[in-house]
Amino acid sequence: MKKYKAFLISIDGLGDHPVAELGGLTPLEAATRPNLNLLAKEGVLGIVDPFAPGVPCGTDVGHLCMLGYSTDIYSGRGPIEAVGAGITLSAGDVAFRCNFATVDETGIVIDRRAGRIRDGVEELSAALDGMNLGEGITANFAPATEHRAVLVLRGHDLSANVSDSDPGGKNVGQPIQPIYSLDDTPEAERTAKALQSFLDKAQVILDNHAINLKRVKCGLPKANAILTRGGGVMTKLVPLKELYKGFKGAVVSGEKTVLAIAKMVGFDIYTNKSMTGSYDFDPRVKATAALEQIKNHDLVLVHVKATDLAGHDGRWDWKKDVIERIDILIGILKENIAEDVYIAVTADHSTPCRIGEHSGDPVPALIWGPGIRVDAQETFGERSCAGGGLGRLNGNQFFSVLIDLMGFSKKMGA
Amino acid sequence: MKKYKAFLISIDGLGDHPVAELGGLTPLEAATRPNLNLLAKEGVLGIVDPFAPGVPCGTDVGHLCMLGYSTDIYSGRGPIEAVGAGITLSAGDVAFRCNFATVDETGIVIDRRAGRIRDGVEELSAALDGMNLGEGITANFAPATEHRAVLVLRGHDLSANVSDSDPGGKNVGQPIQPIYSLDDTPEAERTAKALQSFLDKAQVILDNHAINLKRVKCGLPKANAILTRGGGVMTKLVPLKELYKGFKGAVVSGEKTVLAIAKMVGFDIYTNKSMTGSYDFDPRVKATAALEQIKNHDLVLVHVKATDLAGHDGRWDWKKDVIERIDILIGILKENIAEDVYIAVTADHSTPCRIGEHSGDPVPALIWGPGIRVDAQETFGERSCAGGGLGRLNGNQFFSVLIDLMGFSKKMGA
Repeated sequence: MKKYKAFLISIDGLGDHPVAELGGLTPLEAATRPNLNLLAKEGVLGIVDPFAPGVPCGTDVGHLCMLGYSTDIYSGRGPIEAVGAGITLSAGDVAFRCNFATVDETGIVIDRRAGRIRDGVEELSAALDGMNLGEGITANFAPATEHRAVLVLRGHDLSANVSDSDPGGKNVGQPIQPIYSLDDTPEAERTAKALQSFLDKAQVILDNHAINLKRVKCGLPKANAILTRGGGVMTKLVPLKELYKGFKGAVVSGEKTVLAIAKMVGFDIYTNKSMTGSYDFDPRVKATAALEQIKNHDLVLVHVKATDLAGHDGRWDWKKDVIERIDILIGILKENIAEDVYIAVTADHSTPCRIGEHSGDPVPALIWGPGIRVDAQETFGERSCAGGGLGRLNGNQFFSVLIDLMGFSKKMGA
Repeated sequence: MKKYKAFLISIDGLGDHPVAELGGLTPLEAATRPNLNLLAKEGVLGIVDPFAPGVPCGTDVGHLCMLGYSTDIYSGRGPIEAVGAGITLSAGDVAFRCNFATVDETGIVIDRRAGRIRDGVEELSAALDGMNLGEGITANFAPATEHRAVLVLRGHDLSANVSDSDPGGKNVGQPIQPIYSLDDTPEAERTAKALQSFLDKAQVILDNHAINLKRVKCGLPKANAILTRGGGVMTKLVPLKELYKGFKGAVVSGEKTVLAIAKMVGFDIYTNKSMTGSYDFDPRVKATAALEQIKNHDLVLVHVKATDLAGHDGRWDWKKDVIERIDILIGILKENIAEDVYIAVTADHSTPCRIGEHSGDPVPALIWGPGIRVDAQETFGERSCAGGGLGRLNGNQFFSVLIDLMGFSKKMGA
């Protein structure tokens, strides 16, 4: 069967609610978006529940579903952060998201981010990495962004079902929490013991570390404790190239979580320093990279983060502006591809400006390309999509539809 | 609760893509179809994913789902072919699709279909049928269409997880493949051994059979080997009459796979020689048979194959013509039934002419009859159905909707 290529444009947090200041339109509906509207007119629209109707997704889950996975493969944010931090995980490894934090002599957390420490985290992390915790368990520790880091426990019979040492964002002034198992299994007991041992040793090592002694001299808070949360066990994720014979994917993104997800599903990674995952994104840089990647790949996932940031910031005006620049990106792609390359546009979740958080609203979606049953909709927006020819699909179903159009699907039965 | 009767019209491979030569319409949308359009105007429409969005189905899976089953009951094509060939299967039986083939002295397959042998396959099959393979395993062997046949292994602790002896369609010139187990279970090992034993004995019996000696004299290739593929274990399928008390179903079709599926779910079978499953189908013959069957049955599945053939052949013009004759069939049904008989129309899968293969596109669907929430759509087509009042359903969900309207559904809770 003939195979086709596709761009999959992920507009992070795209879905929104009507905004009074925009005359009751959403930022997408209010944006000047000639290219998105042309794709809508010549394509087929639908609304997509990234995971399920009414269930808000994180960027990680939203993108896993967008790439066809269901979330039974997903356990906690830790493993994804670990992959993002460059740690190669094996099945059974348990990973935790960490903060460097400041505790006083009595163990009270006085700064959950150790003054948003940046300098020196490499050395501090190195001092904790490779620790032997006994019973065949070792700890790998790697820095992530700013005060964030990742801890991976490696050994047989571990469990992610243990409590957090992090007292939580609104609880500064609380003691660092002791670790306990969240179920009665020997695996959880064993893991809780190893994690507590790591945290105790880490506190001693960090408190006396040269970097921290220097910080005190400069009037900065010590990064002398590790807060853990989001423990997750690494499960085996079958890469798309194994699910669909010969399939080659690539991602163009500036955001660590999306890059990590793409790496987990076996995609080639394209990023560079000008892709900041922030408001200053340049549609021409991303379009150029995507056009380069499509030459050697079947599918290129092009991700833009700034729409989500605007949603979190409650800035419908910024969100509208970002969408207008994404429209330019899409215009460049459309002008420079062969006629038979599909363009699919969707999002990992909604981030309505009036809420400032991810919501469970469906996201708008479209597919443009050969053989499409073009519907009557003429614009790309949350509400035009709700009347589109695709109806309402889950994220992984939307991906199946795209994979089928691309000629990679497998027939059930004969 | 009052019970209602229904026709379920299965238009094989009906769904399609827009065709440029038809002014961007699909063959269905372009067809003259006054009766389908009247049902659409007075009924409710929807789009149906026979198995799941974006997943192409075979005729077997598509019809199982259309009759309300999910495919966890389905294991390989073999059992369906066996039922089609008239072998009564029990739970645990393992069935294989077979070809009579020609091998040379060294075991190289030189014709995968033994010159498309037809004459003599009954006698050759009889020579292999009932073979005792030891360990309580017996072999049943029956001819199917032309060079095709079916092998059923019967005994305790068998598995379908064994390899094919068929080297595959594109590999003429390859040796007949040895059988091995595809997993480590004793069941698969045991089955592989029995199957190999059958194939070895079959080769000796066939090579010396009078039919083959006669073929050589006539310059025809010997049918001296059996190629096996598509092994499947027969699982217990609960017939619809047990799922819905008192429910009686019948099928009118000329196609072996659909007849086999219908038999498996406990339907009475109506077919005759004039029903060829090909382009020459006569709408009056099928309509007459269906009207006869509805007298004594609750549901009559009326199947037309030719739309699928036209899709495979890439002939949108033939597909349009077949649909126009199906419209006549439906007109005859509608004219001759009581007012309270439902008519449901759907398909087992899409076979778009531009692809020539089954695709994962949804199929158009409608229900017409008492109490329907008539929607605003006025024609029956892929795109009008996408805007219909049923929304987007899976095949087995569509059947549940019909069964409920017919008064056979069971209440959850009280």
